[in-house]
Amino acid sequence: MNPLSNLIDNLKKLPGVGDKSAQRIAFYILGMPKKEVDQIATSMKFSKESISYCQTCFNITLESQCYICNDMKRSEDHLCIVAEPKDVFAIEKTGAYMGLYHVLGGVLSPLDGIQPESLRINELVNRLKNKSFKEVFFAINPTVEGDSTVMYLSSILSPLNLKLTKLAFGLPMGSDIDYVDEITLTKAISLRRTLDN
Amino acid sequence: MNPLSNLIDNLKKLPGVGDKSAQRIAFYILGMPKKEVDQIATSMKFSKESISYCQTCFNITLESQCYICNDMKRSEDHLCIVAEPKDVFAIEKTGAYMGLYHVLGGVLSPLDGIQPESLRINELVNRLKNKSFKEVFFAINPTVEGDSTVMYLSSILSPLNLKLTKLAFGLPMGSDIDYVDEITLTKAISLRRTLDN
Repeated sequence: MNPLSNLIDNLKKLPGVGDKSAQRIAFYILGMPKKEVDQIATSMKFSKESISYCQTCFNITLESQCYICNDMKRSEDHLCIVAEPKDVFAIEKTGAYMGLYHVLGGVLSPLDGIQPESLRINELVNRLKNKSFKEVFFAINPTVEGDSTVMYLSSILSPLNLKLTKLAFGLPMGSDIDYVDEITLTKAISLRRTLDN
Repeated sequence: MNPLSNLIDNLKKLPGVGDKSAQRIAFYILGMPKKEVDQIATSMKFSKESISYCQTCFNITLESQCYICNDMKRSEDHLCIVAEPKDVFAIEKTGAYMGLYHVLGGVLSPLDGIQPESLRINELVNRLKNKSFKEVFFAINPTVEGDSTVMYLSSILSPLNLKLTKLAFGLPMGSDIDYVDEITLTKAISLRRTLDN
């Protein structure tokens, strides 16, 4: 197999990269300075090799504990439950949350074989029993699987007597009422708030 | 700089990969088996190192001559002029052309500093003088720069007394007249053909 077709096939393994974009990227790589190609290839291998999961919250990390769990300035009253490390990344970029995290490693999806025991739920329950959090905040995608994961976890966590919250859902900022999908609009209507809120 | 941000920055150098897709690809790479990550990284470096340009047509190749120039079954009467190696790739995929190629290495774009001497035009003229091609076929994108490159080349080649042709332009197959852009539709109207053609 020639190196170009091989490169294209390999690039197609990446998410969001189809036939056409793999071709485009491959030809672009052929035209790049060798040094830059080496940088990209090395950074791929290096991040895969050097990054592991935090022993406490299961976020990605270079050490045994991630920088958030190690940060003394974070509030130990709030625990945010997310599905994947990329959700931590997205929330951290907002700067709007200063508590700790727990990464489940996915959402429940029995059809794909993701059962409660595939997720880090035991670890979550142990953490909540051993530390005195005041609020557990679910930041999980509003999908069928995401919603049922939140429901399942809230039933498990209810005996612990914690404040359980979740992300607000409604119209995205800057959106256009006549372009937004019906389900979002229905949600935004049924969850409408008084003006002073 | 941490390996993940470094990987994201590196991925953003690729065409069509913005902030969001770089993030998505980076997190995906962290979750891939190490072997597959190594394969992608190695194929990038290997294709960059092993691929060079054909001495005759300037298509990409592993040898000094590309497989098309070496193929005795290709018609030596037809020479297709393209801007980039990726255009050869696209035309070869159709199977509709069985002649030879000449890759210019771009199109004229004085604003970007691409003058006739930046392209492989001398090499083209020499090839046409030394070999007896019957038809020179331009397969160059219908853009301002592409069109002026075709015009410039046709004026240079006219003394050689060859048949000069170019790709047909009009509605793409399967398109919808009320969705197609105005310039294409105008072109398709002015280039309309009799039904028996």
